[in-house]
Amino acid sequence: MKAIILFGHGARDARWREPFDRLAVMWQEQHPKTLVELAFLEMMQPSLEQAISGLVKQGANEAVVVPVFFGQGGHLRNDFPLLLQACQEKFPELKLSTTSAVGEDAAVLQAIVDFGARAL
Amino acid sequence: MKAIILFGHGARDARWREPFDRLAVMWQEQHPKTLVELAFLEMMQPSLEQAISGLVKQGANEAVVVPVFFGQGGHLRNDFPLLLQACQEKFPELKLSTTSAVGEDAAVLQAIVDFGARAL
Repeated sequence: MKAIILFGHGARDARWREPFDRLAVMWQEQHPKTLVELAFLEMMQPSLEQAISGLVKQGANEAVVVPVFFGQGGHLRNDFPLLLQACQEKFPELKLSTTSAVGEDAAVLQAIVDFGARAL
Repeated sequence: MKAIILFGHGARDARWREPFDRLAVMWQEQHPKTLVELAFLEMMQPSLEQAISGLVKQGANEAVVVPVFFGQGGHLRNDFPLLLQACQEKFPELKLSTTSAVGEDAAVLQAIVDFGARAL
């Protein structure tokens, strides 16, 4: 079974995660056959490892990790590949892959431009 | 003259800003009559104050600040309103307003869901 992991930075304020919770709900409604989990780099639960562990228990054998970040700085270029590799070694039964950050996607950027245009 | 300020967190790695630079280019191409500036909360230039100063010099009398953040945590709930107020007091000739974070927008979230779906 395939799964998607929406991977965010995390923050101290619990309300920070609201858009991530909304993303997971939208995903479940629109793609009910694909498991979805959130995961956070720091300050929020679950961690990537916890999310993967939960997916393995649900029967997933393949997961795509989508970094819900705008820019690709030190977190995504340095911390994330190491974290992903450690998780892959810990859960060899699940095939992990990843995408670029969502901020690299032209349609995501266009939606931001359109949001700004509506506010003017 | 109206202006839009795309306001991001900032990061140590200069490459982090690439999607922001792309956003500014897209804005200029699609909305050439509205001035656009980037601004960053920390670790990157220009600051919000520097961006506003530049816009005032270009003749702007109104600017909408769009927080290009996913979640609304401490930075947007606490730091940002104070920063905005300080900038408004420093530049009374320019009317400042703001939007919610782009991560609150359903179309932005939908673009992220669609990006994930294409990766599966």
